[in-house]
Amino acid sequence: MYELGVVYRNIPRADRASADALAALGSATVHEAMGRVGLLKPYMRPIYAGAQISGTAVTVLLHPGDNWMMHVAAEQIQPGDIVVAAITAECTDGYFGDLLATSFMARGARALVIDAGVRDVKTLTEMGFPVWSRAISSKGTIKATLGSVNIPVVCAGMLVTPGDVIVADDDGVVCVPAARAAKTLEVATTREALEAAKRDQLASGVLGLDMYKMREPLALAGLRYID
Amino acid sequence: MYELGVVYRNIPRADRASADALAALGSATVHEAMGRVGLLKPYMRPIYAGAQISGTAVTVLLHPGDNWMMHVAAEQIQPGDIVVAAITAECTDGYFGDLLATSFMARGARALVIDAGVRDVKTLTEMGFPVWSRAISSKGTIKATLGSVNIPVVCAGMLVTPGDVIVADDDGVVCVPAARAAKTLEVATTREALEAAKRDQLASGVLGLDMYKMREPLALAGLRYID
Amino acid sequence: MYELGVVYRNIPRADRASADALAALGSATVHEAMGRVGLLKPYMRPIYAGAQISGTAVTVLLHPGDNWMMHVAAEQIQPGDIVVAAITAECTDGYFGDLLATSFMARGARALVIDAGVRDVKTLTEMGFPVWSRAISSKGTIKATLGSVNIPVVCAGMLVTPGDVIVADDDGVVCVPAARAAKTLEVATTREALEAAKRDQLASGVLGLDMYKMREPLALAGLRYID
Amino acid sequence: MYELGVVYRNIPRADRASADALAALGSATVHEAMGRVGLLKPYMRPIYAGAQISGTAVTVLLHPGDNWMMHVAAEQIQPGDIVVAAITAECTDGYFGDLLATSFMARGARALVIDAGVRDVKTLTEMGFPVWSRAISSKGTIKATLGSVNIPVVCAGMLVTPGDVIVADDDGVVCVPAARAAKTLEVATTREALEAAKRDQLASGVLGLDMYKMREPLALAGLRYID
Amino acid sequence: MYELGVVYRNIPRADRASADALAALGSATVHEAMGRVGLLKPYMRPIYAGAQISGTAVTVLLHPGDNWMMHVAAEQIQPGDIVVAAITAECTDGYFGDLLATSFMARGARALVIDAGVRDVKTLTEMGFPVWSRAISSKGTIKATLGSVNIPVVCAGMLVTPGDVIVADDDGVVCVPAARAAKTLEVATTREALEAAKRDQLASGVLGLDMYKMREPLALAGLRYID
Amino acid sequence: MYELGVVYRNIPRADRASADALAALGSATVHEAMGRVGLLKPYMRPIYAGAQISGTAVTVLLHPGDNWMMHVAAEQIQPGDIVVAAITAECTDGYFGDLLATSFMARGARALVIDAGVRDVKTLTEMGFPVWSRAISSKGTIKATLGSVNIPVVCAGMLVTPGDVIVADDDGVVCVPAARAAKTLEVATTREALEAAKRDQLASGVLGLDMYKMREPLALAGLRYID
Repeated sequence: MYELGVVYRNIPRADRASADALAALGSATVHEAMGRVGLLKPYMRPIYAGAQISGTAVTVLLHPGDNWMMHVAAEQIQPGDIVVAAITAECTDGYFGDLLATSFMARGARALVIDAGVRDVKTLTEMGFPVWSRAISSKGTIKATLGSVNIPVVCAGMLVTPGDVIVADDDGVVCVPAARAAKTLEVATTREALEAAKRDQLASGVLGLDMYKMREPLALAGLRYID
Repeated sequence: MYELGVVYRNIPRADRASADALAALGSATVHEAMGRVGLLKPYMRPIYAGAQISGTAVTVLLHPGDNWMMHVAAEQIQPGDIVVAAITAECTDGYFGDLLATSFMARGARALVIDAGVRDVKTLTEMGFPVWSRAISSKGTIKATLGSVNIPVVCAGMLVTPGDVIVADDDGVVCVPAARAAKTLEVATTREALEAAKRDQLASGVLGLDMYKMREPLALAGLRYID
Repeated sequence: MYELGVVYRNIPRADRASADALAALGSATVHEAMGRVGLLKPYMRPIYAGAQISGTAVTVLLHPGDNWMMHVAAEQIQPGDIVVAAITAECTDGYFGDLLATSFMARGARALVIDAGVRDVKTLTEMGFPVWSRAISSKGTIKATLGSVNIPVVCAGMLVTPGDVIVADDDGVVCVPAARAAKTLEVATTREALEAAKRDQLASGVLGLDMYKMREPLALAGLRYID
Repeated sequence: MYELGVVYRNIPRADRASADALAALGSATVHEAMGRVGLLKPYMRPIYAGAQISGTAVTVLLHPGDNWMMHVAAEQIQPGDIVVAAITAECTDGYFGDLLATSFMARGARALVIDAGVRDVKTLTEMGFPVWSRAISSKGTIKATLGSVNIPVVCAGMLVTPGDVIVADDDGVVCVPAARAAKTLEVATTREALEAAKRDQLASGVLGLDMYKMREPLALAGLRYID
Repeated sequence: MYELGVVYRNIPRADRASADALAALGSATVHEAMGRVGLLKPYMRPIYAGAQISGTAVTVLLHPGDNWMMHVAAEQIQPGDIVVAAITAECTDGYFGDLLATSFMARGARALVIDAGVRDVKTLTEMGFPVWSRAISSKGTIKATLGSVNIPVVCAGMLVTPGDVIVADDDGVVCVPAARAAKTLEVATTREALEAAKRDQLASGVLGLDMYKMREPLALAGLRYID
Repeated sequence: MYELGVVYRNIPRADRASADALAALGSATVHEAMGRVGLLKPYMRPIYAGAQISGTAVTVLLHPGDNWMMHVAAEQIQPGDIVVAAITAECTDGYFGDLLATSFMARGARALVIDAGVRDVKTLTEMGFPVWSRAISSKGTIKATLGSVNIPVVCAGMLVTPGDVIVADDDGVVCVPAARAAKTLEVATTREALEAAKRDQLASGVLGLDMYKMREPLALAGLRYID
């Protein structure tokens, strides 16, 4: 349930070092480290391949076809933030283009995650400002109705609280609660290290069946081989 | 309501200079200049990134799974045209591949916009022939039933009249009625010029809130800031 | 109707030479050569553009959110195989990432075709291991329930029998029954040769209307030209 | 391309007798009589089963989330009209409820066809006011932006011109151009009469294969029977 | 972000009288009274027409294809509750049938709202136990993984906190935060009373244009009438 | 991979008694008795509520927009059969209406299951001929291209072999292989009997937690109760 017409100015942000370090681990490893929760729905896709980022969430709640609050949100951006935009109903309009991106970048924003559409994607790509969105659309928006900035929002099915860490790459977008950022970084880093060793083994031809010792549980579950 | 089995040969086309010049402005700016109408549904996507074109519409109405009229349409293409293909029911079959593209290019076509599927996309990309479509599919089509060429069609939810200007890029596809092409070019050009100035300001850190003088209307609408 | 908990080890594979040679013809030409059957639904998309492959199918049936059988399937891979994964219900989870890809590549697999999600797509692209999938998702899977390996499966709406030839490229994925591989190769090769000649004609400005002798049947069907 | 902010008051309506008589034939028969064109997309569904109506179209163009023009349209309704509402972008909001239905009924409207959402469906059902829509939703709308009344609109993929005949029942919604209403009624009536005779034959066990004399063309096409 | 493996036993529930009284007003009026927020996505549909209920939310978080926690939730039901079920990923399986419904009814539950599938809908209809769901499916579920009961969940895009009021009918499902239940009831009741008077006026032929005094603002906005 | 242009006349059908008796158990119980396989995708919905049937499958493969083979299939129907129709590509056209239904009923068919559209649903409802389909549409079809009758087909994602048992009701459609019909009936009947006893217990207020002895495994899995 959303509180409308408010802007929270002083939000607690997740620990900076953890928020920054999570990017290198990627959304899949972070999602695993969280116990497989926190993922925004997979319809959220990057506008270009290869971006891999993390940062702290500044949230904004918008109405269908209205991007007025995007300008209000811009003022609340601090370096290292990622803007997370939710809409009160399903909409594919292009809420964000190169002008807003210029402003967001000037404020230090690293990316936009929006449960709606975006436009000027060619220019955004040239600018190197990544966006994860549900759609791409030329359709512009009006500036008429108040939403809110820095309230908890549901974006692509996931609750995002201002200050949470957002991790996004070609695989999708994950939200890590601020209070769990440091612990998640630790678990994800350990996991990543283990994976490097496994990768070498698998590359040499060792089977996962043997490396993970799956043959016995598979047999117990009743797996039959037929020649 | 469609007239079937007819080919209109002499269609009035939009002013050539306007039709050509609109490409540089892009679909988002043109859509704004039109008063936010004219956009085909955002499920229409380019088969490769980066193409930005405009031209005059040659329309073709096809039946599901039948591309016979594509060959009839080819003969009506003049240099600078863009073929706009509508289907009488939803279909994702691949109506168009590299052979038809070769023929269309030989006639001077700049692109295809089709509310169905396309195939040979790797070759089309190498040929530099852009297509905006709702799907990509290997599935070929038969040649059995008459449709029409150069009648008004509904393509991806938008009415396109032969001779209208089509503007397409990574953001989507916009249709500009022939009679409005010159005026739209003028409005879009002015808008583009204004945006360049705004971009510089925003890049220097000026907020949209101040540049657009939004603080007062936001306060009037009741926006509250909470520290 | 699926047999659960079984692994067929000795499956007859399609003739190797035909299975390998079909890649060069591409999915659209092969689909035509088959009489326009055999195509998986067009929602199956490659994770990166440009891959064009063929190979023999090793099939695996998985449960929603559970990739245990992927490891069982890995052992059944022989050089030149393509793994085809079906799920017992709709699911977009990321069943497959860079670790499994490393293992599959070490076994000689050429690609994965999966009616679900995949992750680590940036790394898979760098590795050059192509995947055709219905989704991309960071969401990992558990290892808890038995499926089967090398039983006939329905993948993206198409029945795939182990040993069938899979042909996949940017246009989609086609399944060629093992018994028809040699004949399909022959028909497709002939078709391809004919297309080269047609391409030259069309490039020189000859119309399909004349090249395919369509003017008479179109007139018979009642097509009217209006000036 | 839409003209915004206008209301056409004096629209020519299709011949009353034809417009009224088409209801009894139903959308499927009328669609056949039209040569299989004119159907709105099949996502348009009635809010309750069993209504079967026809009438003349009063059109209205609305913006997403804004039903202001519905009230403007109400004044233009004459007895025997059906309101056809199109939206400038995809939207599922509930634009129409029991109050507007009360007003529409008082003006003589027979139904609403809307490419968006509707609400109060329980009350509308009790009132016996049928609606065909793409969605049902409690979400109300604002009254802020001008659209138009009685301009040609694209509704659910079909061009509807004011005064056209709308035929709607459990099978869907068909649009018959005003100029073709009388002829369509004639063809549909003949078709209906023929179907009654066929129904009796089929009920007695005669096969369509024999009644329609299909055995020979099937054999010519190569159909093989295998015992 | 979800806390897994916990059951909150003592949740504060919204004021009983308000929670019970909201049913009579219906989801559309309550949604308006809330300022047009709180609606679950419109893909949530009732399994049979005509049910109109309200009650206090007991929430349950489930995993795809696993309904174990439904049984845990049953114990937390008190008379007047409505179970609200969210899933950690998209799923259409049938999590709930007549056995669970028997148990829920025995505990005093009024309904189930589930962002997944349900089965035994014929029996549920005969029992008079209403369910709002995104799908109907025969597919059963396993009992293997812990979720949680009575934590805040995102159901069909809306955040639902345990103890909130749920209002559901043929138009959809609305969530009213516990703290706003009494005030919402008051606003909705007033609104309902005003609507009855308006209905009489509209039924007598008065136009909304006059009743709502829209003619002047429409003219100011530039509406033109053309004869 | 489909064989085109053939009609198999003498198909082995599942044991009649089992095929008939499965209806009473319903699709959900039968699906459980099969080990949770065999379900067609849940987008298959009945055209009216309340029908609950079973019978032996006569299959037909159709092309998009072409129902010619429906007439060929009619001749192969024996009393107690259910026609299962698959299409070679996605299509929502109305392949089947009251005339074909009259013919099918005269032959003894119990229902139609079609992965496409159907029309005349009001009349079909009055006739009491149930259909499960993915769509309802007025759009008719042509009679031009050969498919096949009584070959194995993929319908709504499930492989159906001629002679298999189909069980369908408001919850969906399940396919039982002919060879497993008798055993499935036995398992389903036992399951049904057990459910009746459970229902009584649950109705008396016993919790599933206790009846199914779930408290210990839940505690072992780590479930925590918080007051």
